Amino acid sequence: MKRYDSRKTSYLPENFYNIKADLPELPPPPLNPATGQPLRPEELEPVFPRAFIQQEISAERFIPIPPKVLEIFSIYRPTPLIYASALRKYLDTPARIFYKYEGVGPAGSHKTNTALVQAYLASQEGTTTLTTETGAGQWGSALAFSCRQFGINARVFMVRSSYRQKPGRRIMIELFGAQVLESPSPTTASGLRFYEKDPNHPGSLGIAISEAVEAAVSQPETKYSLGSVLDAVLMHQTVIGLEAMKQCEEFGIEPDLVVGCVGGGSNFAGLSFPFLGKRLREKKSGPRFLAAEPEACPSITRGELKYDHGDTAGFTPLLFMHTLGKDFVPPAIHAGGLRYHGMAPLVSHLVKLGLVEAKAYSQKQIFAAAELFLRTEGILPAPESAHAIAAVIDEALEARKSGREINILFNLSGHGFLDINAYDRTVSGNGHG
Amino acid sequence: MKRYDSRKTSYLPENFYNIKADLPELPPPPLNPATGQPLRPEELEPVFPRAFIQQEISAERFIPIPPKVLEIFSIYRPTPLIYASALRKYLDTPARIFYKYEGVGPAGSHKTNTALVQAYLASQEGTTTLTTETGAGQWGSALAFSCRQFGINARVFMVRSSYRQKPGRRIMIELFGAQVLESPSPTTASGLRFYEKDPNHPGSLGIAISEAVEAAVSQPETKYSLGSVLDAVLMHQTVIGLEAMKQCEEFGIEPDLVVGCVGGGSNFAGLSFPFLGKRLREKKSGPRFLAAEPEACPSITRGELKYDHGDTAGFTPLLFMHTLGKDFVPPAIHAGGLRYHGMAPLVSHLVKLGLVEAKAYSQKQIFAAAELFLRTEGILPAPESAHAIAAVIDEALEARKSGREINILFNLSGHGFLDINAYDRTVSGNGHG
Repeated sequence: MKRYDSRKTSYLPENFYNIKADLPELPPPPLNPATGQPLRPEELEPVFPRAFIQQEISAERFIPIPPKVLEIFSIYRPTPLIYASALRKYLDTPARIFYKYEGVGPAGSHKTNTALVQAYLASQEGTTTLTTETGAGQWGSALAFSCRQFGINARVFMVRSSYRQKPGRRIMIELFGAQVLESPSPTTASGLRFYEKDPNHPGSLGIAISEAVEAAVSQPETKYSLGSVLDAVLMHQTVIGLEAMKQCEEFGIEPDLVVGCVGGGSNFAGLSFPFLGKRLREKKSGPRFLAAEPEACPSITRGELKYDHGDTAGFTPLLFMHTLGKDFVPPAIHAGGLRYHGMAPLVSHLVKLGLVEAKAYSQKQIFAAAELFLRTEGILPAPESAHAIAAVIDEALEARKSGREINILFNLSGHGFLDINAYDRTVSGNGHG
Repeated sequence: MKRYDSRKTSYLPENFYNIKADLPELPPPPLNPATGQPLRPEELEPVFPRAFIQQEISAERFIPIPPKVLEIFSIYRPTPLIYASALRKYLDTPARIFYKYEGVGPAGSHKTNTALVQAYLASQEGTTTLTTETGAGQWGSALAFSCRQFGINARVFMVRSSYRQKPGRRIMIELFGAQVLESPSPTTASGLRFYEKDPNHPGSLGIAISEAVEAAVSQPETKYSLGSVLDAVLMHQTVIGLEAMKQCEEFGIEPDLVVGCVGGGSNFAGLSFPFLGKRLREKKSGPRFLAAEPEACPSITRGELKYDHGDTAGFTPLLFMHTLGKDFVPPAIHAGGLRYHGMAPLVSHLVKLGLVEAKAYSQKQIFAAAELFLRTEGILPAPESAHAIAAVIDEALEARKSGREINILFNLSGHGFLDINAYDRTVSGNGHG
């Protein structure tokens, strides 16, 4: 059998890829919730840095990566593309499985890719503090690291269920010098509404976003930063797919299937969009694209495609996306990063166009997949990323049945070292209640 | 300033490097404790696989890496060599700092490098179980992963203070399918001696080694595996230094100073020995080599160079090394991997020859160094590796005083994600009592 070594490349992209340049039609625009009219860019200025808004609305195919950001990317990028030979052997499948491993970066996930850009752009416009929400804490620690790199402050509203389940990530955020607040918190009107009824409210990303936006617009020199969902955020993550394309070329392979987990959609989009854009430009029928989501928070597979708010309080524009409703509070699953009621409008649009498929997995399935991955490939995945692994295993077993030698590429978006307690069977009995 | 990108190479060594081929004189041999005579290789056969013993006594300069091991190395090797530009900038030093990051491997440290070789060699000789000890759990999880790769069992005696401080690593070992016992345990005579007096005895690597050796020699098809100290183990780790030499060439630099932390000595030796061998062959006066150890367990800086046992019960041969005495029980510092009373005989020998320097650091110093590293470079180091960082910071500040533009290379031997609780200031008050 051909041997595929990992990380053969030293290629680091100098531009982000904007899939909007290649779409057959654009998704419906965000709306101003007060007027019901398409949002004007300047209406976002109280919330986001101007340069970020420009990126959000740009239709250019390539957007340059700021040199200061590239310099920090070079600490951990390009991330390796690894051939999962042991997993393949265990599954006895003709499918060849490759994964892009984003867990090697600071904070242990792909989130740093966009956090660095957002912190840099904010720092260039005199912003001294960025507020944000965080689910599992991966986004919060990425933003805390990035703000520290550019000399600004970070204030992080951390969903309470994660804050308590995952003290490790809270500690990481604090070590980077950022402030962490349990959400719902009593420090904002939108948090207080839930906190007053129940100080132990488990929280949700929707509520935490409301708190962070409120905190940003009510303080001077403070802006808000979002870790997923927005077009620009997805675009920042395309460094993953651009590197992976180059690495696939060096391996001499083309993926037949690209897989990622989805919460807001950013790591899935980051890996997929460059391949999807190529498929659109070349008018091909493949590869396939598969988004794996939790059964406990199944925005695409069970949600409705419609205009909805990105947050619970209704501060954000109306986004046309798959949604479970802005008031949906998902159960406190371990994959805290996927507990979001909505979906990135670009991902939803691609689902609608028939270019992206979705499948939902239970917590039990994803922990079984994660353990198998650990035992074969030696890497402990984040529970979020384990959704992608579960989908890959399904597809690889399907390929065994059909005897098809397909190439599967997936995004291992983060490691699970800080989720280790979730893996402790001696504590939880069956493992993953 | 010149920009140094990380991980430019795809070079993977095909041989381990054996420094004994280049030493001006060999260290004093191990002795049989019963006879006081130099140990004959066959006397080690009840404990170690024969092929491993051959490697331990070999004087060949290069020992081939088994192809099956190379295949698994290629999942995570070559590990990146990273230019610490942010740390350098913070320290405002003319010294250029580079680090080899071993935390990207399975189990998160360099330990997998030798674990894979030992598990492979054992599996080839019909061994069905390997026993071992572990301090912080890094070695135990590396061996558990490696045994799983080659279809054999692992039984791990984990030093009680680490077992309780670091449940994460215990969980990792169990996830890999290995058995974990708190040491001192009641399952061996050498453990029982301490357990009977105090079931909460914090344990030590010396005691845990006695238990693991006893368990190996008393069971059929069971051998023992050691994570450091032995010549062959240090040799397996030279993949680190061999890759680093190649990466330094690609950067166009030569190190003036090579730094690693030492417990048993294996990660320090792994990075240093290829550079040290080159210095010896070329009869140069540099680079310098600096070993950083904990003040709480200062084998080199405070110990005596003499024959002593590698374990507490006196099962192992007498080794000529720096030792605090086989009965020394170090305080329960967070750097559990460095709580060893002795030192690798080869490292001790090089100290005696004046080729290696040593310096001791307090727990407070190393946590301050680790936090600074996290905030600048974005990687959370293991407390063990933080000793190397503390030494590097000292030397970089020294270079600032003298204005010398030296190149410093150090081994970031593992990440600290599973040590995160040790970093929690809100729990521990001042941080790191």
